[in-house]
Amino acid sequence: MEPTLNPESGFFRIRIDFSYDGTNFAGWAKQPDQVTIQSTMESAIATFTRETITLTAAGRTDAGVHAAQQVAHFDLPNLDRDGNPWAIENFAYKLNRILTEDIRIISAVPAPNNFHARFSAISRHYIYKIADGLQTIPPLARFDTTSWYRELDLDRLQAASNYLIGKHDFATFCKPDAGATTIRTLAKFNWERGSDGFLRADLISDGFCYSMVRNMVGAVACVAEGRFEPEWIKTILNDKTRISDSLVFPARGLTLQSIAYQ
Amino acid sequence: MEPTLNPESGFFRIRIDFSYDGTNFAGWAKQPDQVTIQSTMESAIATFTRETITLTAAGRTDAGVHAAQQVAHFDLPNLDRDGNPWAIENFAYKLNRILTEDIRIISAVPAPNNFHARFSAISRHYIYKIADGLQTIPPLARFDTTSWYRELDLDRLQAASNYLIGKHDFATFCKPDAGATTIRTLAKFNWERGSDGFLRADLISDGFCYSMVRNMVGAVACVAEGRFEPEWIKTILNDKTRISDSLVFPARGLTLQSIAYQ
Repeated sequence: MEPTLNPESGFFRIRIDFSYDGTNFAGWAKQPDQVTIQSTMESAIATFTRETITLTAAGRTDAGVHAAQQVAHFDLPNLDRDGNPWAIENFAYKLNRILTEDIRIISAVPAPNNFHARFSAISRHYIYKIADGLQTIPPLARFDTTSWYRELDLDRLQAASNYLIGKHDFATFCKPDAGATTIRTLAKFNWERGSDGFLRADLISDGFCYSMVRNMVGAVACVAEGRFEPEWIKTILNDKTRISDSLVFPARGLTLQSIAYQ
Repeated sequence: MEPTLNPESGFFRIRIDFSYDGTNFAGWAKQPDQVTIQSTMESAIATFTRETITLTAAGRTDAGVHAAQQVAHFDLPNLDRDGNPWAIENFAYKLNRILTEDIRIISAVPAPNNFHARFSAISRHYIYKIADGLQTIPPLARFDTTSWYRELDLDRLQAASNYLIGKHDFATFCKPDAGATTIRTLAKFNWERGSDGFLRADLISDGFCYSMVRNMVGAVACVAEGRFEPEWIKTILNDKTRISDSLVFPARGLTLQSIAYQ
């Protein structure tokens, strides 16, 4: 059930910004018998508010995917169970005391009118990090960097990625999700090689379908390895035939960097 | 037993540079019934060389302390058990295949004459990272940053630390270690606040006694909090009376950054 666009009467909305290391979670969304970020955070919020709440996130991240800045909202009754106003200014601090360090609350504030964490978002920014060739990943950087044993050519990565920028039907790169559109506007897909020697992709779009980033990274990596020419990306994009799951790059290199609102 | 300064006849020496996340290790040095970095690496080297070897490191790091670049050496017979020369150029790759990702071999090369990982080192560089005040630590940075709930004033940190720079008897800051000198030359003890908002100390010395960095950080933090004036550091340094263990800052903020050789 999709939460209502605005809080029910007698309730108000809180916007919560947070980050997480996705390594030990089965992704964002609640699932039976799984430790997920949503279920962990909902329990923590229930612990100190004594209210059962539902979190709605800007985007559902997969198992193993990280977030530098994820955004969610939840609704609370105007007064607490003792009839007192909430001390929202203490929410972030209280939550951080309850949660383990792999989830950190950046802020919790009353949401503006008509704010909806998912539907008010105008763009999402993801990054993907790869240590290619024979580079070793520094142990403290291992949680958000994927290792790829072949060398990836930066110019070819970018040439291939350029075919994906713009408004397209990205069905080729999306796991089927009944009823969801696969038409998206990819505003940015930029590669660079950092001073650490590792490759980093920055992707910004109005939205990403399920597995879309990791599929696109896998496809342009094929080009960067020399298996295909950059134009192959244009061909498969236009085909709209879902490419092989074997081209999905691992979750651990993927981080939701930020969400932009109007 | 201290290893010989040079390899025995019929043996040659290998220098190995590596990094580790110390979170899940009981420090560098071998100890009964403990998983240490030394024991883990010695087992891994024995697995593919079929030789029992002993590693000598530039410095023994404590439980929970990390290394961006640690250096060690070990000696091997000139030929392997099949009578063949060693393919040293493959050692780093082979070791990285055996080890888990919290230890990564940067390089393994034949050591120059008279090279001794510990005694040839002319200086050690450590860093210490602190998120002070109410700052939250991004989950992916949590492994090598210490949280300190009070705000620490950068100018007072530096003023206090300046009293420690130079050649001194650092007995005040060293856990007793029979027979070991506590006279050291601290060439650098510099604090900065990074763009992430966190404090970082860089310390360079010809050597550090056991717990010396974490004790000095704890002491200058007392000054930065306003509990003492910077001159207090000069007083306790000259007293040479070991300060309280309660002033030892946690291991997880400490990283051995590099070792310099002649």
